[in-house]
Amino acid sequence: MKYARPLPAYLTTRYRGWKATTYAEDKAWYRRLAEDGQHPRAMVISCCDSRVHVTSIFGADQGEFFIHRNIANLVPPYSPDGKNHGTSATIEYAVGTLKVAHLIVLGHSGCGGVEGCYHMCSGNAPELEDSSSFVGRWMDILRPGFELLPKGDEAMRKRALEKASVVISLENLMSFPFVKQAVEDGVLSLHGLWNDIGEGGLEAYSPDTQGFVAV
Amino acid sequence: MKYARPLPAYLTTRYRGWKATTYAEDKAWYRRLAEDGQHPRAMVISCCDSRVHVTSIFGADQGEFFIHRNIANLVPPYSPDGKNHGTSATIEYAVGTLKVAHLIVLGHSGCGGVEGCYHMCSGNAPELEDSSSFVGRWMDILRPGFELLPKGDEAMRKRALEKASVVISLENLMSFPFVKQAVEDGVLSLHGLWNDIGEGGLEAYSPDTQGFVAV
Amino acid sequence: MKYARPLPAYLTTRYRGWKATTYAEDKAWYRRLAEDGQHPRAMVISCCDSRVHVTSIFGADQGEFFIHRNIANLVPPYSPDGKNHGTSATIEYAVGTLKVAHLIVLGHSGCGGVEGCYHMCSGNAPELEDSSSFVGRWMDILRPGFELLPKGDEAMRKRALEKASVVISLENLMSFPFVKQAVEDGVLSLHGLWNDIGEGGLEAYSPDTQGFVAV
Amino acid sequence: MKYARPLPAYLTTRYRGWKATTYAEDKAWYRRLAEDGQHPRAMVISCCDSRVHVTSIFGADQGEFFIHRNIANLVPPYSPDGKNHGTSATIEYAVGTLKVAHLIVLGHSGCGGVEGCYHMCSGNAPELEDSSSFVGRWMDILRPGFELLPKGDEAMRKRALEKASVVISLENLMSFPFVKQAVEDGVLSLHGLWNDIGEGGLEAYSPDTQGFVAV
Repeated sequence: MKYARPLPAYLTTRYRGWKATTYAEDKAWYRRLAEDGQHPRAMVISCCDSRVHVTSIFGADQGEFFIHRNIANLVPPYSPDGKNHGTSATIEYAVGTLKVAHLIVLGHSGCGGVEGCYHMCSGNAPELEDSSSFVGRWMDILRPGFELLPKGDEAMRKRALEKASVVISLENLMSFPFVKQAVEDGVLSLHGLWNDIGEGGLEAYSPDTQGFVAV
Repeated sequence: MKYARPLPAYLTTRYRGWKATTYAEDKAWYRRLAEDGQHPRAMVISCCDSRVHVTSIFGADQGEFFIHRNIANLVPPYSPDGKNHGTSATIEYAVGTLKVAHLIVLGHSGCGGVEGCYHMCSGNAPELEDSSSFVGRWMDILRPGFELLPKGDEAMRKRALEKASVVISLENLMSFPFVKQAVEDGVLSLHGLWNDIGEGGLEAYSPDTQGFVAV
Repeated sequence: MKYARPLPAYLTTRYRGWKATTYAEDKAWYRRLAEDGQHPRAMVISCCDSRVHVTSIFGADQGEFFIHRNIANLVPPYSPDGKNHGTSATIEYAVGTLKVAHLIVLGHSGCGGVEGCYHMCSGNAPELEDSSSFVGRWMDILRPGFELLPKGDEAMRKRALEKASVVISLENLMSFPFVKQAVEDGVLSLHGLWNDIGEGGLEAYSPDTQGFVAV
Repeated sequence: MKYARPLPAYLTTRYRGWKATTYAEDKAWYRRLAEDGQHPRAMVISCCDSRVHVTSIFGADQGEFFIHRNIANLVPPYSPDGKNHGTSATIEYAVGTLKVAHLIVLGHSGCGGVEGCYHMCSGNAPELEDSSSFVGRWMDILRPGFELLPKGDEAMRKRALEKASVVISLENLMSFPFVKQAVEDGVLSLHGLWNDIGEGGLEAYSPDTQGFVAV
């Protein structure tokens, strides 16, 4: 693999600082983690967006959250066709092997993937409709959410679509037989969240109101 | 979506603490992030494993790394077939839209996905060979790495396979035309890393030795 | 400009080494910086002193900090009189155009400018009182700090004056209408630091105690 | 000063890493620097731009360069009027007190201050002509450079103005009697440089050709 390059110097420097402080001060825990393996209490499905740090928001230590991150925190419907399904594999591993108790889908404000979907579904991003567009085909998962958007101004509708990405993912999660079984057995609970980055807000999906309410 | 449940109390408590401290003290930065959008300098592809915190190792603040996490930090080969490809979508977005300068694949010790692959390829995990096994089909990406493992004891061979997951992902990245073009144009550089969780170690792939060396 | 001379050989040599290593290894990032322009997260006002390297202390890469350096890290009071005000221009650009989220004033131990001010205000440096002394007139900004020094030995009083240079600069920053507005709008936060060079110490100004505490 | 805020957590973390590695490994040198005071070999006047790290380009250790950074690396003409002149104070201190042997003015590509000057002088940035614009009044120093620009396309003319900011600063330096005296006594040499950020290039002003040539 001749294309690999050395790590940028500032990352090497910062790593050395981490090793000498955070790691050194907590070596016992890192060793325990290595020997015992992981026993996370929850799985989180969040966006790749660089502004979303679920471990920061929830003060999480190494070992607490099994975290899958993809564009727009989406879960595709169950489709066991023998192909590579990265997201489905993470869910199968978390529920079937790790037996996490919680599965949290975390959306956020200003999501670029959701915005792309919005423009694609509005007919304003033909390049995303191309069959070779990985982002476009991935955002197809959210297309049903666009159809159900309330009328109103664009900013409101985009925000509603961000929240729809959470609800649709929760619904698709229930299409996985092993998720449905675990939920019905009472050994797994699902949670939908949406993070307002600028205001530090957190809203949770409530089945009662079928809407999001501040945590 | 009637199955969603309220957030566990300990997470609500921690979130409220974060909002009153970390967020409150750094509100200006969160608002800037919300208004300006993200300008991450690097994309990181790491494992979902709860013990791997790339932002901690590299002292990264919100906004620095666009992070995709999947089982065993794998990148599948380029395959524009119009289907949902979550990992490929993240790469397309990071390279094409965000124009990150660095793309880092980060493997780690004790990877459960890699171990599953090892047992599957050794004939000891028939359940993973099933066409309906999402984990098995996802780990197929790493199968070529198993064929090339050196002889030796199991622990050594598993570790070699963890590192192969990094190298194969780097090779598959180069099969994406837009990644190859960006690398050749000198606007994107690829990096392969492997983190020893228990020892806090970090090794980087070196094309010169075709092996990993301590950072 | 006939007085310019060739660069000393040792600097040419070092530059060529940097180009062949640091730059070559990180070319993608330099190109990204050139194409995208800068998006620094913070502005730092520090002293010109050759011993103060804020990028080193904070593991900062190119692009992270917009840095103004002057004698004794001073900010003069707001004075829009149509004259050249280099420091005021940097603040206007950072807050108004770059919209940085943090503005950090960084003082340090053994500051020669502060020491000059101390002697000037003590009546022991008449040459600095001369109207043609640029250093003296610049250090006039810190004069109010001298008046408020506690009684005690000289070393303690000089150190207190170094810290006063940070606090007075923060106060003068608030005299700029656009700084005050941004702070009150919650999109800019101010921070005061003092670096002990010999001990590698870092202290932060705390409004609660109106003093400096170790970070 | 009630507006000061705690340091963002990521900076505290990085500082602690620096203290435990870079500082700890080189403590003797930091203590020597603190006890002996600074003896820099050169003064550098560079831009505040976050992408310009003169210590990186020249592999400089703590203690080597006395660094003044302002918008567009400008030196105003000598003007001993008893007012605060931050840049003039830095020059007086470096030449008169520290007795540096070299004085380097370092310009760079993509300079936002120079671009603002270009637009202001072209009549396209009336807000910068306002007497209360600190950036505009600071960039007045470069105005004579605009008048002498060659005809041609805008990109070429902006680059020429960036280089003019170096030459005009060198000329203004010679208007300071103590600079002129030191140069003529052969104890100070002046150098003009321009850094191409994206390409890692460095060009030096040559009095022979009255132009810039690659180092």
